[in-house]
Amino acid sequence: MPTILGQNQYGKAENRVVKITRDGATHHIKDLNVSVALSGDMEEVHYSGSNANVLPTDTTKNTVFAFAKEHGIESAEQFGIHLARHFVTSQPAIQRARIRVEEYAWERIETSDANSKFIGADEVKHSFVRKGQETRLAQITYDGSSWEVVSGLKDLTVMNSTNSEFWGYVKDRYTTLKEAHDRILATSVSGRWRFNWTDDEQRMPNWEKSYEQVRKHMLQAFAETYSLSLQQTLYQMGSRIINNRSEIDEVRFSLPNSHHFLVDLEPFGLKNDNEVYFAADRPYGLIEGTVLRDGCEARIPVDLTNL
Amino acid sequence: MPTILGQNQYGKAENRVVKITRDGATHHIKDLNVSVALSGDMEEVHYSGSNANVLPTDTTKNTVFAFAKEHGIESAEQFGIHLARHFVTSQPAIQRARIRVEEYAWERIETSDANSKFIGADEVKHSFVRKGQETRLAQITYDGSSWEVVSGLKDLTVMNSTNSEFWGYVKDRYTTLKEAHDRILATSVSGRWRFNWTDDEQRMPNWEKSYEQVRKHMLQAFAETYSLSLQQTLYQMGSRIINNRSEIDEVRFSLPNSHHFLVDLEPFGLKNDNEVYFAADRPYGLIEGTVLRDGCEARIPVDLTNL
Amino acid sequence: MPTILGQNQYGKAENRVVKITRDGATHHIKDLNVSVALSGDMEEVHYSGSNANVLPTDTTKNTVFAFAKEHGIESAEQFGIHLARHFVTSQPAIQRARIRVEEYAWERIETSDANSKFIGADEVKHSFVRKGQETRLAQITYDGSSWEVVSGLKDLTVMNSTNSEFWGYVKDRYTTLKEAHDRILATSVSGRWRFNWTDDEQRMPNWEKSYEQVRKHMLQAFAETYSLSLQQTLYQMGSRIINNRSEIDEVRFSLPNSHHFLVDLEPFGLKNDNEVYFAADRPYGLIEGTVLRDGCEARIPVDLTNL
Amino acid sequence: MPTILGQNQYGKAENRVVKITRDGATHHIKDLNVSVALSGDMEEVHYSGSNANVLPTDTTKNTVFAFAKEHGIESAEQFGIHLARHFVTSQPAIQRARIRVEEYAWERIETSDANSKFIGADEVKHSFVRKGQETRLAQITYDGSSWEVVSGLKDLTVMNSTNSEFWGYVKDRYTTLKEAHDRILATSVSGRWRFNWTDDEQRMPNWEKSYEQVRKHMLQAFAETYSLSLQQTLYQMGSRIINNRSEIDEVRFSLPNSHHFLVDLEPFGLKNDNEVYFAADRPYGLIEGTVLRDGCEARIPVDLTNL
Repeated sequence: MPTILGQNQYGKAENRVVKITRDGATHHIKDLNVSVALSGDMEEVHYSGSNANVLPTDTTKNTVFAFAKEHGIESAEQFGIHLARHFVTSQPAIQRARIRVEEYAWERIETSDANSKFIGADEVKHSFVRKGQETRLAQITYDGSSWEVVSGLKDLTVMNSTNSEFWGYVKDRYTTLKEAHDRILATSVSGRWRFNWTDDEQRMPNWEKSYEQVRKHMLQAFAETYSLSLQQTLYQMGSRIINNRSEIDEVRFSLPNSHHFLVDLEPFGLKNDNEVYFAADRPYGLIEGTVLRDGCEARIPVDLTNL
Repeated sequence: MPTILGQNQYGKAENRVVKITRDGATHHIKDLNVSVALSGDMEEVHYSGSNANVLPTDTTKNTVFAFAKEHGIESAEQFGIHLARHFVTSQPAIQRARIRVEEYAWERIETSDANSKFIGADEVKHSFVRKGQETRLAQITYDGSSWEVVSGLKDLTVMNSTNSEFWGYVKDRYTTLKEAHDRILATSVSGRWRFNWTDDEQRMPNWEKSYEQVRKHMLQAFAETYSLSLQQTLYQMGSRIINNRSEIDEVRFSLPNSHHFLVDLEPFGLKNDNEVYFAADRPYGLIEGTVLRDGCEARIPVDLTNL
Repeated sequence: MPTILGQNQYGKAENRVVKITRDGATHHIKDLNVSVALSGDMEEVHYSGSNANVLPTDTTKNTVFAFAKEHGIESAEQFGIHLARHFVTSQPAIQRARIRVEEYAWERIETSDANSKFIGADEVKHSFVRKGQETRLAQITYDGSSWEVVSGLKDLTVMNSTNSEFWGYVKDRYTTLKEAHDRILATSVSGRWRFNWTDDEQRMPNWEKSYEQVRKHMLQAFAETYSLSLQQTLYQMGSRIINNRSEIDEVRFSLPNSHHFLVDLEPFGLKNDNEVYFAADRPYGLIEGTVLRDGCEARIPVDLTNL
Repeated sequence: MPTILGQNQYGKAENRVVKITRDGATHHIKDLNVSVALSGDMEEVHYSGSNANVLPTDTTKNTVFAFAKEHGIESAEQFGIHLARHFVTSQPAIQRARIRVEEYAWERIETSDANSKFIGADEVKHSFVRKGQETRLAQITYDGSSWEVVSGLKDLTVMNSTNSEFWGYVKDRYTTLKEAHDRILATSVSGRWRFNWTDDEQRMPNWEKSYEQVRKHMLQAFAETYSLSLQQTLYQMGSRIINNRSEIDEVRFSLPNSHHFLVDLEPFGLKNDNEVYFAADRPYGLIEGTVLRDGCEARIPVDLTNL
C-alpha cells in the first residue's frame, strides 16, 4: 500500500449542554459547548471501514450529557477531566482523549423594587442574562498517564485611548507609514495558558479562581503597559500572568491589531485633536507570541487562528 | 416606458466611528456603526444615470466623521438627529433622511493595587473593555417637518430556569409535542420602541436615561412574569415599557424561542430532575408582536428579521 | 388596560428539510430552510397566556416535514403554497400564513473514467456537491382568499471590471471624492420580485423556469449596462425583468456598492494602469430601489436588510 | 527575568487584493485574501518595545499590493512564493516568512442573444459572477533555504444520498444509536495537502493544474466510495490524491459529519421510505486524519479547526 494513515482523531463536536443546579429557589447555571476528540487503534476503520474499535460519536455525545448529571459541572476543566479519563480508561482501543470546552457566562437579573419586596430579594433567583463578553475556553488532554490542561479565552475586546506609540521601525522601498507618538491601541484578545498540573498525584489548581485571576492580570497588564508596540504589550500580558500565577508555565496570545485610523478632518475645515477615529475591519496587524516560564518547554500549538 | 421607479434610497452604510473625549486624563468613548439612507428627487439617476441630484455616499460618510467632531456624540439618537437634519435641510433634492446607529458599550478596566497607589485611582482612565452584551440600536427619520425616533437593542440573551409552562394548545394530526409544566424559557431579545417625540417644539427625551430604563423594565418583566407562553411574556415586556415610560408609544419584539430540550437520561440508568438540557440551534419558535399605547398607531415595520 | 396588542405572528423558523427523490438509481435532492409565521385570533395568548387558539410551533415544524412526504417539493413556491393553504384552511383561529423558504442548490459530481466505464454513466447518480452560489428565496402569503408570492435571491456576487463611471454629482463642504471615469462596479445582489398570480383561478406560473429566467435577465442586465451610477444599473436590472417576464409586476433590490479602491502604486515607483485594487469591507454604499410595472402598486417592504 | 519569549510571528492579515489583467477587451480576475506572518530576531520588540528590527505590518500590506503589479498573480502559490522570498531575503532580521492565501473563484456572465450579436461573443468579457463554491487555500513558508507549500480548500459541501452504512461499532452503557444500513453521508470538506517541492532547484509543480486535479480526485473518491464509516471515506479521498498526484506527499482532512436525520413520519400516518431528512446543525461528528505517502513524514499540523 503506497499510502499510510497518520494522526487521526474523531468524536462529537459542539455538544451544547446546559446544567441547572437547584439550590432551593436559587438556581445556578453552567452553559457549555463541549467537543470530544478520541484517538487510538483506529487503523481498521480507515482502511476497511470496520467499526469494531469505534465508540460512536453519538455515544460520546450521550456521555457528555450523562456526565453533567453524574458528576455535575464544577468547572469547565474539571468536567473535561472527568470525560477524558472516562474515554481513555473505559475503552481499550482509545489511548488519548482531548476535550474542548467553550463556556458562556451568565449573570443574574436584578428584580424590580415591587417584586423585591414581594419576594424579599434583589434578584430573581432563576432569571439570567448572558454576560456576552469573552468566551472562556478549556482544553483537557489525557493519554492514560499524564494530563495537559490549557485554558483560555477569546473575543475579549480591549482598547487604550492613549499611552501607545509606534516609531523607530525598519523602512524599506514599500514603507509609507507615518510614525505615531500617540495612537489608539485596540485588540480582541485570543489567549491560551497551560497549567503545570499534569499528574493525578499533584494537587489540582482551583480552576475557577485561576481563570478569574489570569483574566484580571491580563487586563491590568494591557491597561498599565505604556506601549511602544503591540508585541511589547503581548509580552507584558503573558509575563504578568506567569509571574503571578505559579500554576501556569506557558501563555500564548493571538492579538489582532484592530486599527483605529485618525480621520483627517482638515478637508472639512476642522481641527483634529485625536478625537475622531475610523475603526477598520481588514486588513489588520496580527501579533502572535508565546511567553514561557524560564526553563519550561513550549507545548501550545503556534496556530490559534486558522485563516 | 412600461416600468416606473418606486421607493428608493441610498447612502453609505456601516460607518464605524469611534469618538474619544478627553476630560484631562479621563477619557470617554463612543463607538458607533452609522448608516445613512437618503431619499428625494432621484428619478434621473435611475433613468439616465445623471448624478446631478446625487450627494455621493462618500460625502455622507465624511459627514458622519466630521459631525463627530463638530457636534460630538451625546447619544446615538442625538447624533442621528444632527445628521438627518443636515442632509434634509442642506440638500434641495433630498427630502427624507434615515440614520441607523448600532452602539457598542464599553466599561473601564480596573487597575491593579500597585498601579492604583501609583496613579491614585482604581481605574485606568484611558483603558476600556467592550461590554459585549446587547447591541444598542437607534433609527432616526426626518422628512423636513417631523421626526420619527425608534430605539432598540438586539442580541440580549436571557433565560428563566423555571416559572414557564406550555399546555392547553390546539392538537391536530401533526401534533406530537408533550405538554410542559416546568420548562426553561430562553430567548435572544430583538426589540424596537418608538418615541412620541416628533417635533422640534416638543421637549426632547433624555435618550440615555430612557434607554437604561427601558432595558431595565424589559429585563424585569421577563424575569418576573410567570409565563404560560412566550407570547404572554412578550406582551408583559412591551406593556411594562409603555406603562413606565411615557415617552414611548409603541414596542415591537422579535423573540426566538431558544429551545432547551430536557435530555432523557433514563437510557443511561439516571434519574432526571430537570437538570440537564440540550440547547438547540434550529429550528426555533419565533414569536413577534407589537404592543401599543391605547389610541396610538403602529408604525414600526413588521419585519425586524429578514430570513 | 392602557396598552393593546398590535400585529403579531408566530411559528417555527428555519426548518431544515432535505428531500431525496429516488428515481431508480438516480436520486434528486431538494434542500430547503422553511420558516412558518401564522397570524389570527391570538389576543388571548398574549393577554392571559391561554393557548386555546395556538397550534404549537412544534406542530408547524412537523407539518413541514410531513408535507415534504405528502406533497413532495416541486418548487420552493409550490411547497409554500401547500403549507400556507393548509394552516389557514385547517385552523379556524389562523387567518393568515406566511411561509418563507431559502433554497440551496446542488449539482451532480462527475464520476471518474474508471467508474464511468463500470457504472456506464458520467455522473454518480446519488452524489452531489453544493453549488454554493446565491441562495434562492421564496415567500408565500395567504389570507384565505388571495395569494402573494415574492421570490428572490441573496448573496449573488457580481463584478464589472470596466464600463462604470461616477461623476457629475453634487459637491458640498464635506465632499472629497474624485470623479471616476473607469471604475470597478461590484455588488452582492439581494433581490425580491412579486408575481401577479394572486388567485387559485389564475394559471400558476412555472416557478422553476421563472426563477432561472429572472436570474438570467438580472445577470445580463448587470453585465450589459454601461453604468453611470449603481442606481442606473439597479433600474436596468429591474426593468429588464419586468419587460421580459409578464408574471412579475414588481422588483426590489438592495445592492451594496462593494468598493474596490485602486491602490496607489506611485509611492513604490510603480505605474498604475487600473490593475490592482483593494476590496474594502466597510463602509459601503447601499443602493436600494423598487421597479414597478406601470400601473401596479408596490407591496414589497422597503427593508430587505436590517442592520 | 523569570519569563522568556517563545515562538512569535507578526504581519498584516487579510489583505484583500483584486488584480485585473486586461488582455484587450477580455479581462481576467484574481481575487485573493493574503496574510503575512514573519519571524526572526524579534526579542527586543517584545522585551523593550524597540522596533529597530520590525518591518511594519503596514509595509507588508503595501508589498502585497505592489507585488500584484510587479509580479502579477499567476497562482496563489506562485504569488506567495514571491512574497515569502522577498521578506526573508531583503530583511536581515527576518528568518522565516509564512504567506497564507484564500482565493475566491469567479466565472464569466453569459451575455444575451441581442448583445451577443452586437458584440460578436457569448460572454461579456469584463463581467463576472463569483462562483461561490469552495474557498481555495495556499500556505507558503520559506526559511531562506527550503520551501513548504501546503494547498487546500474549505467549505466544499458534498452529499451521498445512499451507499453509506454505519454498524458493528462498540456499544457501552451510554450507547443508544441504532445501526444504519442506508444513510445519507454529507460533509463540508476542509482539506490541506503538502507538496514535495521544497527547493528552488526542483522543477516547480503546475499549481493551477494540480489544484484542479486534486479537487477532482477528492470529489470522485467521495462519490465512488461505498462507505462503512466517514473515516473510510476520508482515507479513500486522501489515498486517491496521493496515488494520482506525485507532487503531493501528505493530505489532511477535517470532515464534519453533517448529520441528516431521517424524520419519523409514522406519527402522522405516513410511511417513510428514506425520503425526508432533517439537516442538523450541532452537535456533529468530526472526523480528522492524515494520509501520507509511505516513507514520508507528517508536517501538516493536527488542528485545521480551532473551536
